[in-house]
Formats: sequence, C-alpha cells, structure tokens
Amino acid sequence: MSEPEASEAIPAPARPSIDFRSDGRAAVDWVAGYLERVGELPVLAQVQPGDIRAALPDRAPDEPEPFAEVLRDLDAIILPGVTHWQHPRYFAYFATSSSEPAILAEMLAAALNSVAILWRTAPASTELEGVVLDWLAALLGLPAGWHGHIEDSASTSTMAGLIAAREATGRDLVLCSEQAHSSVQKGARMAGLRLRRVAVDDHQRLRTDDLDDLGEAAAIVATVGTTASTAVDDLDAIGRLCERTGTWMHVDAAYAGAAMVCPEFRWAFAGIERADSVVVNAHKWMLTPQDCSLLWSRRPGDLRAAFSLTPEYLRTPDAEDALSISEYGPALGRRFRALKLWAVLRCFGRSGLQRHIRHGVALAQAFEGWVATQDGWELCAARHFSVVCFRHEGTDEHNERLMHALNATGEIFISHARLNGRLVLRLAIGHPSTTEEDVRRAWELLRREARNT
Amino acid sequence: MSEPEASEAIPAPARPSIDFRSDGRAAVDWVAGYLERVGELPVLAQVQPGDIRAALPDRAPDEPEPFAEVLRDLDAIILPGVTHWQHPRYFAYFATSSSEPAILAEMLAAALNSVAILWRTAPASTELEGVVLDWLAALLGLPAGWHGHIEDSASTSTMAGLIAAREATGRDLVLCSEQAHSSVQKGARMAGLRLRRVAVDDHQRLRTDDLDDLGEAAAIVATVGTTASTAVDDLDAIGRLCERTGTWMHVDAAYAGAAMVCPEFRWAFAGIERADSVVVNAHKWMLTPQDCSLLWSRRPGDLRAAFSLTPEYLRTPDAEDALSISEYGPALGRRFRALKLWAVLRCFGRSGLQRHIRHGVALAQAFEGWVATQDGWELCAARHFSVVCFRHEGTDEHNERLMHALNATGEIFISHARLNGRLVLRLAIGHPSTTEEDVRRAWELLRREARNT
Repeated sequence: MSEPEASEAIPAPARPSIDFRSDGRAAVDWVAGYLERVGELPVLAQVQPGDIRAALPDRAPDEPEPFAEVLRDLDAIILPGVTHWQHPRYFAYFATSSSEPAILAEMLAAALNSVAILWRTAPASTELEGVVLDWLAALLGLPAGWHGHIEDSASTSTMAGLIAAREATGRDLVLCSEQAHSSVQKGARMAGLRLRRVAVDDHQRLRTDDLDDLGEAAAIVATVGTTASTAVDDLDAIGRLCERTGTWMHVDAAYAGAAMVCPEFRWAFAGIERADSVVVNAHKWMLTPQDCSLLWSRRPGDLRAAFSLTPEYLRTPDAEDALSISEYGPALGRRFRALKLWAVLRCFGRSGLQRHIRHGVALAQAFEGWVATQDGWELCAARHFSVVCFRHEGTDEHNERLMHALNATGEIFISHARLNGRLVLRLAIGHPSTTEEDVRRAWELLRREARNT
Repeated sequence: MSEPEASEAIPAPARPSIDFRSDGRAAVDWVAGYLERVGELPVLAQVQPGDIRAALPDRAPDEPEPFAEVLRDLDAIILPGVTHWQHPRYFAYFATSSSEPAILAEMLAAALNSVAILWRTAPASTELEGVVLDWLAALLGLPAGWHGHIEDSASTSTMAGLIAAREATGRDLVLCSEQAHSSVQKGARMAGLRLRRVAVDDHQRLRTDDLDDLGEAAAIVATVGTTASTAVDDLDAIGRLCERTGTWMHVDAAYAGAAMVCPEFRWAFAGIERADSVVVNAHKWMLTPQDCSLLWSRRPGDLRAAFSLTPEYLRTPDAEDALSISEYGPALGRRFRALKLWAVLRCFGRSGLQRHIRHGVALAQAFEGWVATQDGWELCAARHFSVVCFRHEGTDEHNERLMHALNATGEIFISHARLNGRLVLRLAIGHPSTTEEDVRRAWELLRREARNT
C-alpha cells in the first residue's frame, strides 16, 4: 500500500476568536449576575419596534470579533430589548420558567450536538428522551406504557396529534371548544383539516351536548387549563363519546399538565386514560427553558404510521428502527432536548417540582383572596391553578387602559383575555423566584392605577 | 387603601441543588475537556439498543440530587451512548458542527429564555433574528429584501414552504426529483399533498423535460446539494418554468447553502432569485449547533396568509404585528435561536466562514485525488463541495460489509447512498477540527479493510 502523495497545501481551518475556558467563565458569571438582578430590570421591554435593529450593524463583520464583545453588546444592545420572562413580576400569558440546572444542560447539549435522526446517530439522546418521558408520565399520573417524546412547541405537538388522527380515521374535521388555544386552529389549517368550535358552558368548559358531528371528526381537542381562564374540559365524558365514534381525543394540557405532579390537582386529569394523545409543555410551568413540549400517545403505532417513511412491509424487527424518534413526529433532525429535562428532574426531584407548583398556587390563592374582598374589584372565573382572572369596575376600555398603564411602568407585566364577551385581566404566576412581596406589589400597583386611570 | 391581610403561610419556593457559579465553571470545564478529547473517543457509539435505558433508574428521584451527579452520570452513562458528531473523523451523512461561541450563546439564550410569541414578548429575539438573517442573505448572495426567519429543522422549513404554496395556489401536488430529500415527501404528506418524483439526468439533477404537470403543482422543490451526491438542480431553468405556470419554487439548500459564502461556489445558486422560498441549515455546515434552519422567502405575504391567524381585515398598521415571526411559520412559541447564530457570525466573521468552507472542500478534494489514482477504487459522482461518493471494486454487499467493519472500529464513521442502482460510500467533511491527518487515516483504514473484507 503506497502512501498517498502529499496533497497541495490544505488551507488552515477557521478558529473562532474565543478562549473557551475564560470566556466560558465570563458567560457563566454573566448568567449568574443576570439571574440575581433581573428583578430590578423593567419586566416589559421599553423599546419601540425597530429600536434593536437600528442599534445593530447592517452587515456581518468581515473579520472575527472577540467573544467578549458579544457579551458586551448583549448588555448594551440586546438586554434593553428583552421582555424578561424570568422576572419575578412577569405575570402575563403563562409563566415560562427556566432554571439553573437546565441552563447549564443546554450548554452541554450544544457541545455534544447530538443529532437524533436515527437511533444509531444519537443512542443516548434517543433513549434518555424515552426514559425522562416515562419518569414524567409516572409523576403526572399518566397510564404506564404510553410513548412519549419531545417536540419544540405545543403548536407542533398538537399538529402532530391531528395529523396522526387524520391518517388513522380518514376524516377531515377537527372539533375543539371556543376556548381552545389558537394552535388548534393553526394545526388544523396546516394539516388541511376543517375546524368547528364547540360552545362552552358557564364555566368555559366544552359542552358535551354540542357534539352531534363527533362521528365525522378525525379528532377532538380537549383542554386541561384553557389559556383564558384555565378551565378544564371533562375528559372522561368526552373520552367516552370518542370511544363510541372512533374519534381521536387529543388533550391540550400545555400549561396545567405540570400541576399533575401534585395529587391534589389530579381531578383535572380524570379520564386521561381515554386520551389518544396528550401535550404538556415542560417549558411552561416545569422549570425547563424553551423548547420542551412533551407529547405522549397511547397509539404510537398510529403516530408511526403517520410520520414514518418506511412502509410497514419493509420494516425489520431491528430494535434500532423502533427507537428512532423521527418516525413518531414531524422533524427528522432532533436536538438533545432531553438533557435539560433530565437535569431539572434530578436537581429538583419530585418533591421540588411539587413545591414549585404549590408555591405558585398559594401565591395565586392569596391574590385571589385580596381581590375577592376589595370593593370595586371582581373575580371573573374560578381559579383552578395559578392564574387569576379579574377586573376593576367600569368599562372594558377602562380595564384595558389600566393594563397598559401598569405594563408601561416596567414593574409588572400582565395580560388580558375575553370571557363572556368581557375583557378580563389575568395574573399568571409560575416563576420560582416570585415572592409574596412581588404579588403584593402587583396588587398595590393595580389599585393605585385604578384610582388614577 | 387598606393593606391586604397577611395571607396564610405561603410555602417556600423550590430551589434546585446547584451553585450556579461553581457548577457552571465545572460545566464549562467539562465542555472544554470534551472538545479537547472527543477525537480519542469512538466516533460511533459502541452500545446496543436498550443499553442506555438499562443504565438509568426506573423513576425520577424523589429528592433533589446535586448537579455534580448529573455531570458525573454524563460521563458514566450518557457519553458511551453518544455518537460524536463533533469528532474530527465523523464523515457520515452531512457534518453538523457546533462551535465554541455558539455553545456559550445557547447557555445565554436558555438564561434569558425569551419566548417570541409576539414582538412585544421578545423584541430583541425577534429583531436580532431578522438582522442576522439579513446579514446571512448578503453573505450567501441571496437577493436583498427577502424575509428570513429560523425554524428547527429543514423538515419544518420545507413543510412551511409547501403549506404556503398550497394556500397561495390552491393546488395539491408537489414535485421534486428522485434524489430530493425524504423531508419533501414527509412535508407533503403532513400538509395533505400528493407528491410526484421527477426523473434525474446522469448527473443526478432533476430533468426539466419531465415537468408536464408543473402547471398542476402547488410547488416544486429544487435541491442544491442532494443528500446522496450533492447534485445541483438547475434553479434558473426550473424557476423560469415556474414563472410561466405560477408554481412555487422551494429550494432545499440545507447542506450546500453554507458554501455560498464563498463566491467560487455561487454557480450553484444561479437562478436563486427566482425561488419563492429557500432553506439553508446553519446547523449543518455553518458551525451552529442544532437547531437552526434558516428559511427565506421573497413572498412573506404568502407565508403570513398561510400562518397568521389574524384575518387581513382585522390587521392594524401596527409595526409590532408585522414583526411577530409566529405569523410567518408553524410555531407560536419560539426560542432565542438567533443568539447563537449572531455569536458565530461575530466570532468567525465572513473570512472565518469562508476559511471553514474552503478547508472542508480542500480536504474532500485531497481525498478525491487519492481515490481517483488508486487501483480498485472508483469515484461515483462529481464532487461539488465537501462530499466524496466512491466505492471499492466488487459487489454492493462487499462495500456494505466494508462500511460496517470500518464503523465498528470506532475510528471513523461513514455512511452510504444509492446512485444509479448501486451502493456507494460517502465521505462527508465539515467539522473545523478535521485535519488532513484525519482524512488520511480514513483512507488508510478503507484500504486496509478492503483487503480484509
């Protein structure tokens, strides 16, 4: 065997302008400092559209710049444009909490950069994903033996459930309540399906007497914890009807699913064993940063039939094939998202997750009590978890002005919803750093602005 | 205003078992050590299906465990199950490279945990994404003024392009060549569309004389850098035909798009200005870890019509609305993916990206030269970028055995493809740490195993 000839000069490889150990320490210190002082920053970014773009150069640099300058511009340019989801007085939409173990795990995942297109290209990523989803299924009271994997967002998880339902039933209609999340409408549209919104009862729950066309539906999406008021659809009743009509029941528990780690909230999952697929976002109330949407199904065969490109007759009994998660959902390349969830489960433990949920619920309960006993204020929906819907006396416009005035202070950030035709304000709790003092401050500001608006 | 009554005792919040500064330093050191020694590890994980699962507990811990134990188990349990995409002798599929600036940026993004559902919930994330996509459009020679954003994977980017095409044309057929990636088939199926594979010429390029049904097609997917052999479809010819028939041209440049940062490869993008949408994966050959798939479109209005839930007549001229990226793609919640791409562009600069591409191409060129001049070996396709398709004399089975034997050594990892009915081996280069020595070693092993197999 002759040696290959010396080749023409190979140009030197590219090297970034970074010293990983020292710049890494600076980045860790930056994160530690950020988490310590985020409560002092304006929670809602106080910038106008276009401000951040205007502060950035028009084009990429020609030559490498030191990583230290990236960190410097993070403070100087990026931070003023950040709405701080990790702020203790972030009360808008649903809280989306990060946590220290997951922040480090994301760095580790980026270093390994496993790409799980097939089992063999990422055995650890593939199997750890299965294991932590099994751990969580047990923690949340889901039936044993379901197939779980991670998608980027509930939009994708719900779309995947609807596509599997479409393929399994051959039908093209999707049902969900008037209070279901917009991602159901979007998912149905992406999958080329029709959507009908079912009426809700006085408690914002899907009306099971408005399901005459259930037998024509590929799927019905039931919600545990609606976006507006955290209402809980009757899974057991809907599931029983679906069993009769052969309709796929997809459960959207994106927010409230995390609460099921505490037995006292499991009433909301009564009937969950009848679901065909369920989505819970670990990146909402489970201390895991974006993106980590958990999708379970008791019908993995139907998911595989919808998403695998290998026809059944070509499949081998090869255990590798059965494990490849890309066969159970939309994406082929999948990053190592399970690592951060594993870090969260280990560094908080079951007891820590329970404590986290109970802490948030207790704070919401306290706020609810204050609103209930204050003249001129009204609770607008039952509080099941950590979200309180309320309003001040007066018009919708008055309440909306009140909200905008409060958000402009930068001290708190709240959002609104529409219930029974009226605008209501929402205080959504979920970050572990939120204290009773933070919630009291919100109540103080609300009452002050209500007098001034 | 009366003070709210002291509420009942609020339980203490959950705190993870971690010291962010000291555990963070340990994690940084772990990553630095991993990047230094990854070349000494077996590139293809030497485990069997189920091994990793068997090494992990059956359930989550009840009580918090120290982060140090996560790091310990990362070495003890996870690492043996990792196929090392960052290994200098990873030559399979397409290289998917991470880099130090991006690894740190992923940690920063997880700490900020911006959730870009609307502009106001993440102004910096939203605007930086627009800015870096504009920077890259200029670097890659895309026309000015196109709308760019980031999706998780090319599967999603292509599905999004097909859905936009379906909505814009009202048609339900998708065309792509026999050599197009499986994600086109999957995307078409998810969107409820029919697919027809168009024949290829002797150079694996889509045959433009096999397009009689182009006028019935919602979209045609042209590929710049096919997965098997990096063939380049004729964008200009296909684009001209599409303009006549009103068909959407989506360009899959997931791998080869990165090479366009060097003017000498721009021949492959001739006609790109006729594309309606283009996908380039920064997480393939652009030093950015998963997930970072770049999707540009010259028809943002059509993307918005397909994915926005706000009907046109309700839209306001509000600049905020126009910026919200969730209106241009499938997901609502979006993480701060632009931060890592920004860090890569700044710490490498245009010159660093060019150097990276040229380094990989030069190594592939050297390997190509060795194969061309060695008896018993054959090149099987033109080498346009950094992938060489070749085979040893003998049967498909012989070549397949050769590949499996090599991969089992743990020294290199290569994959295969099928071209003109024959199995060919692929050597795909792309990691910045790959040296000429690594490629020589692959060639040495190939010749040794060819003698022994």
